[in-house]
Amino acid sequence: MTNQIVELLLQHRSIRKYQDKEVPVDIIETIVRAGQQAAFAYQAYSVLLSRNKKKHPFGAPLYFIPCVDLHKIELIMKKREWKFRMCDISALLLSLQDAAYMAQNLVIAAESYELGTCYIGSVPYHADKVAERFDLPEKIFPLVGITVGYPAENPPTRPRYPMKFTLFENNYPKIEDKEISKAMDVMDEGYLAQDYYKNAGYMIKLTEKDEETFDFKTYSWTEHISRKLGQWEQNSKTLLEQFRKRGFDLTEIREDLDKTHKE
Amino acid sequence: MTNQIVELLLQHRSIRKYQDKEVPVDIIETIVRAGQQAAFAYQAYSVLLSRNKKKHPFGAPLYFIPCVDLHKIELIMKKREWKFRMCDISALLLSLQDAAYMAQNLVIAAESYELGTCYIGSVPYHADKVAERFDLPEKIFPLVGITVGYPAENPPTRPRYPMKFTLFENNYPKIEDKEISKAMDVMDEGYLAQDYYKNAGYMIKLTEKDEETFDFKTYSWTEHISRKLGQWEQNSKTLLEQFRKRGFDLTEIREDLDKTHKE
Repeated sequence: MTNQIVELLLQHRSIRKYQDKEVPVDIIETIVRAGQQAAFAYQAYSVLLSRNKKKHPFGAPLYFIPCVDLHKIELIMKKREWKFRMCDISALLLSLQDAAYMAQNLVIAAESYELGTCYIGSVPYHADKVAERFDLPEKIFPLVGITVGYPAENPPTRPRYPMKFTLFENNYPKIEDKEISKAMDVMDEGYLAQDYYKNAGYMIKLTEKDEETFDFKTYSWTEHISRKLGQWEQNSKTLLEQFRKRGFDLTEIREDLDKTHKE
Repeated sequence: MTNQIVELLLQHRSIRKYQDKEVPVDIIETIVRAGQQAAFAYQAYSVLLSRNKKKHPFGAPLYFIPCVDLHKIELIMKKREWKFRMCDISALLLSLQDAAYMAQNLVIAAESYELGTCYIGSVPYHADKVAERFDLPEKIFPLVGITVGYPAENPPTRPRYPMKFTLFENNYPKIEDKEISKAMDVMDEGYLAQDYYKNAGYMIKLTEKDEETFDFKTYSWTEHISRKLGQWEQNSKTLLEQFRKRGFDLTEIREDLDKTHKE
């Protein structure tokens, strides 16, 4: 029950090694254009592009940074003599989706040209650096990075949770212990079978004095993700500060809006 | 410079009228599975499904609600004797992307089976109602709705901003007045040429006493979006409260994390 498009989606895996081969300009424009055609609330995004591969993760030939962009809509509204009044948290919730749906379309379009991609999720934590490098005005927030290029590796697809642990019809059940274990096994055995962490040579270190009890025969996805989410160094202040520097106040509580909306 | 996949992406438009025709179960599972294969930070989402079309927007046969889901990862971490320590704003920023990339894959997979889709962006504003209906535990936040079914309409694709107003290489320029006007013209003339608002019979009312100076010959996208963003009724308190009810405190400022991470 698949077709060529579903086949492509099911073949997705992140690519972290790239050939030293340029991506033609018309492919770049086509994948961004395909990104743009995703559904939107108010097209509240821009896409930054760098082709200076020395500065990119994995030395990828292309590095895209989809950004939430409220600046452009403010420019448009100003010409229409309106002032942007939506609170930042609402604006962000919608614009983040605009940017994300576009980004995912861009990724799929790239893969349709046999390009490889990898999302770089750490971008928001150094949003100030991105802003400096790309001269970003306020009200633009870099959401994520995407490396793009012709793959120099051919990794297998990675496992995903079972359908029963993902899709819930009519109600969200109390998840049985055996379903949790099954989901964990699928992930852990899947990654172990591919020697994923062994090949990467990487285990997240325990920040406590606890002695390491794992090795590459036992360390897998659920332990990895637990260490990440249980020891994460970033704090809310860092991230909220990055948003604030870009002109977004997510903690502001506006009880009601000024009724004089029009300038 | 396109292929079958890019063609599909470029043909996207939202569908708001649906045939009274069931979607086969294997297609439902396939499109969710294709959604799952999208890149993730920590698979922090679930998908709710309703087939009770009387309750759906546009009476669509299927209604999916992709949710941010930190509950499942907490269950897994508990079994590994870890406690979720990431601050809510970081967790949300990553999990929202997990959910969004999955959602967009699901939409594309659906369209590959000639199904139509429409995102429903208002879902977060009544997250409490969704939680009640689907028995959601805390730490699950409904992000967006997606109606799915066989189309009973065949609308044209809608315009998008010009590439020059979207893709910025190396630096984000000071956007010239003529580029703003051009982007506005592309959108406004594009929607007017399709009689979009006229056919919808819908103009956002001015909430001030200002007299209406637009009619369906002049009212188009930039005026529509300006009224939406300039008069939006929702306030930050409503939305932050919806997050809080679901167990997310976005305003909490954690200066540093307790160093005793492991339980």
